[in-house]
Amino acid sequence: MSVQHMSAAELINTDVEKKSLFPLNMWYVAALSSELKDKPLARTILNHQIVFFRTSDGEVSALEDRCCHRALPLSLGTIENNGIRCGYHGLLFNGDGKCIEVPGQGKVPRKALVSTYSICEQNHLIWIWFGDENTQEPTCTPPEYPVHNNPEYLFDGDVYHYEAPYQLIHDNLLDLSHLGYVHLYTIGGNAKLHMTAETKVESDEKMVRVVRHMPDSVPPPTYTAAYPFKGKIDRWQEILFKISHLEIWTGAVDAGSDSLDNPNRDGFHMKGFHGITPETETTCHYLWTMSTNPKHDPEETAKKVIEQTRLTFDEDKVVIEAQYKNMQNFKNRTMLDIHVDVAPNRARRIIESQLT
Amino acid sequence: MSVQHMSAAELINTDVEKKSLFPLNMWYVAALSSELKDKPLARTILNHQIVFFRTSDGEVSALEDRCCHRALPLSLGTIENNGIRCGYHGLLFNGDGKCIEVPGQGKVPRKALVSTYSICEQNHLIWIWFGDENTQEPTCTPPEYPVHNNPEYLFDGDVYHYEAPYQLIHDNLLDLSHLGYVHLYTIGGNAKLHMTAETKVESDEKMVRVVRHMPDSVPPPTYTAAYPFKGKIDRWQEILFKISHLEIWTGAVDAGSDSLDNPNRDGFHMKGFHGITPETETTCHYLWTMSTNPKHDPEETAKKVIEQTRLTFDEDKVVIEAQYKNMQNFKNRTMLDIHVDVAPNRARRIIESQLT
Amino acid sequence: MSVQHMSAAELINTDVEKKSLFPLNMWYVAALSSELKDKPLARTILNHQIVFFRTSDGEVSALEDRCCHRALPLSLGTIENNGIRCGYHGLLFNGDGKCIEVPGQGKVPRKALVSTYSICEQNHLIWIWFGDENTQEPTCTPPEYPVHNNPEYLFDGDVYHYEAPYQLIHDNLLDLSHLGYVHLYTIGGNAKLHMTAETKVESDEKMVRVVRHMPDSVPPPTYTAAYPFKGKIDRWQEILFKISHLEIWTGAVDAGSDSLDNPNRDGFHMKGFHGITPETETTCHYLWTMSTNPKHDPEETAKKVIEQTRLTFDEDKVVIEAQYKNMQNFKNRTMLDIHVDVAPNRARRIIESQLT
Repeated sequence: MSVQHMSAAELINTDVEKKSLFPLNMWYVAALSSELKDKPLARTILNHQIVFFRTSDGEVSALEDRCCHRALPLSLGTIENNGIRCGYHGLLFNGDGKCIEVPGQGKVPRKALVSTYSICEQNHLIWIWFGDENTQEPTCTPPEYPVHNNPEYLFDGDVYHYEAPYQLIHDNLLDLSHLGYVHLYTIGGNAKLHMTAETKVESDEKMVRVVRHMPDSVPPPTYTAAYPFKGKIDRWQEILFKISHLEIWTGAVDAGSDSLDNPNRDGFHMKGFHGITPETETTCHYLWTMSTNPKHDPEETAKKVIEQTRLTFDEDKVVIEAQYKNMQNFKNRTMLDIHVDVAPNRARRIIESQLT
Repeated sequence: MSVQHMSAAELINTDVEKKSLFPLNMWYVAALSSELKDKPLARTILNHQIVFFRTSDGEVSALEDRCCHRALPLSLGTIENNGIRCGYHGLLFNGDGKCIEVPGQGKVPRKALVSTYSICEQNHLIWIWFGDENTQEPTCTPPEYPVHNNPEYLFDGDVYHYEAPYQLIHDNLLDLSHLGYVHLYTIGGNAKLHMTAETKVESDEKMVRVVRHMPDSVPPPTYTAAYPFKGKIDRWQEILFKISHLEIWTGAVDAGSDSLDNPNRDGFHMKGFHGITPETETTCHYLWTMSTNPKHDPEETAKKVIEQTRLTFDEDKVVIEAQYKNMQNFKNRTMLDIHVDVAPNRARRIIESQLT
Repeated sequence: MSVQHMSAAELINTDVEKKSLFPLNMWYVAALSSELKDKPLARTILNHQIVFFRTSDGEVSALEDRCCHRALPLSLGTIENNGIRCGYHGLLFNGDGKCIEVPGQGKVPRKALVSTYSICEQNHLIWIWFGDENTQEPTCTPPEYPVHNNPEYLFDGDVYHYEAPYQLIHDNLLDLSHLGYVHLYTIGGNAKLHMTAETKVESDEKMVRVVRHMPDSVPPPTYTAAYPFKGKIDRWQEILFKISHLEIWTGAVDAGSDSLDNPNRDGFHMKGFHGITPETETTCHYLWTMSTNPKHDPEETAKKVIEQTRLTFDEDKVVIEAQYKNMQNFKNRTMLDIHVDVAPNRARRIIESQLT
């Protein structure tokens, strides 16, 4: 059966049947760098219970979150110079998962070790590798996200825990037509405009790109507060879906001042990073940042833009978790597609193709 | 096996085995009219998840609480002039469950519709029909409850959610002998008096009626506050059980001033309406109102009577939910009958006879 | 297969397989005497749901916590002179579980009774007997704990509910090496000292005893506040494990003033009683008291010592419940033993031997 011929409803229902599987042989976003300071972080990813910690040399390690002695989560322990010490009987493990001290006992047993995970910290993000049996070691480097290192941008973010499977967030972010209904009180504005903006969708076997242009439109308040626009603006929304994350680049230039197809266009930019990482088959982590380049009062304006972003993502969370609860209540009954589902359905097909 | 020969304990245990069934081809109380103003109401009834809403013409509709597009509960949407709009992508459904607008899409798909339920608003109550496969459409009108439209009475009420099967509330209301123990601190009074009041029970295949008379007794404080009694009173308690609800009519006249068998007797009256509607096999809704005709300071006195009623029903809820939890803890072990169980057991037999 | 040859990890995993079984034909600690005043007490022990109550003659009874009429927990009822009265319809049960009154009904049905449990109140503790089919009646008296009746000691205690199986508390109390890690902020002190103190373990088929001596050490603040030590002290920790409870006797004398092996040694004593009673296979009750003999300002000092004890036991609870949750998360994967597990493992073998 060719996946290309399955309807979205079939894809959604199929996912449920295969729900113990996730795409493998890739990097997932595990944490924001800012989360790892002097305390261990417990996080379950792809059903693996993991403790993350940063030692004094700045290195981040990820171990199975279970002491091999009496099973206490290591995340309840304390970070020391060269490892993490269990909070029950004090066994000390280094970043390679090897126990290097059993207090009060001369010899450390050979079997005293815990599993480790491959970690890469890059662009203020912590990535974690999940391979299949043949590729436990990473076969590539994580995706680059240089925006976080661009001095022209200010950014901040947060990590949301979702009581919903990760693909429902993909659906949401790939279809901005919901802005007028879900985000009525934040960034929504005119629902009809969002619904009818001309939209181009392109995709290959690894990504989906959605581009929407709203030329010669009135700038919303956030935009005029952040940037010295002269009058009407040419706006864009560009969504790039990859399996591990989405990049959503929105912004505007003075109307007619630049081509919206110019990748180096000037103006006001909001660049969202959306790491979407399964926790279990039915829950996920949403690790987001928002980067922006305000001209007026940059620190203060960026703070406001990020706060507005947070409120918007809070609204999405309410809707998506209610949606998932209702899907369960109605036992995953078949869904009906409409025009807005083109891009989300392509993303579902990409993930489906990774699960075979 | 004749149902008439089953003990109450057998009936209770039998219900458990058949617990996926409810009486059908009848109206249940779905809501108080006062619950439906400008917001949708989500309520599960007989395992159906339903959204109720009142459009600007005053009409109440009931739809399956699930958008056919991406399964969001419609109860999270907004009411418009001619229907309810989904809060995710804005699909608009009319009261017949038909989608009449898909924002941004010219044509509404033929399959874009959700199930509807037959509703009747009458006497300030919203009734909902549940038929079997052959009687999806109502074959009768709902029971009348004209007390709510009687200008001599003031009423108010509330809807309680119970973590207990609906028949346990029937048991409770049909046996007022519990007043002296459960309602020790509200309306209880002398336990022995309640236990030994002469009680008549009559029933047919659709109803149970219990009549208790307490002639020449001292009026309780609520009564003297509400009505200019001259001294001792003749009191009555009349309980009418029907499958969808109970009517409990209590009150008193000056001792010897009127016959307690006169349906048009004067005096002070408290008329309770008790809609008891299954949510699931193990939970239910208790939709109650209390109507009264105080002579002194009517608004204020009615408010006090209703508040007293609420406290009393709160006490019942604690007991009934604890009872059900314990029934589960003890795995529905057989129960022992005593004299007070006559009327409750007849009600159980009526419901049992509807389930065959 | 000889139990003596099983590793601790095997024992732990074996317990899980046999988890519906507890040692029988013995007394368990059911309550502190101080818990039973004028209200009934509901407590589940070894999966039995029980109501305990003390009648006006001071006698404590224990009945199945379910009225035989309509299954309400009797613990929601009220204590009367000669029994407990159900809070629903007022059935009155005496301490033998026999219904002695059905309000409003002349004759009490022969079958109106509930199960009873054998109780013994002794040394300010309430003990309950659990036998097998052949020994429903106690075949011995409960263990003595005369410390509670010793006028030289002041004591108080509490009952903690644990979301963890009871044997994890045995493990914790038999291995005081955790003091330096779990109790870092209370009684911990120098972790290495606790880990390396010389420890003697002895055991037979019914008990495990652990003795640790710390001669010529600096007295901790609690000790100097409570007792007029002259300088350095000789300290001891003696742990006695029995299946129903542990006794932990810690204390100190002035260095060199007495033999630590003298059972009548003088000095400052803290005598902990630790009743550990299964609630279910996965939860338990921890009924503890602390008795002490301070010389300075005894009432006030004892209060402080007991408060410090409480904080310490709170810390243990956090660790043990987290440990158990993680054991479940990791599906009871095999554990690795270290030197501190000698005594806990012997206790596990004793219980294992009782389950055959």
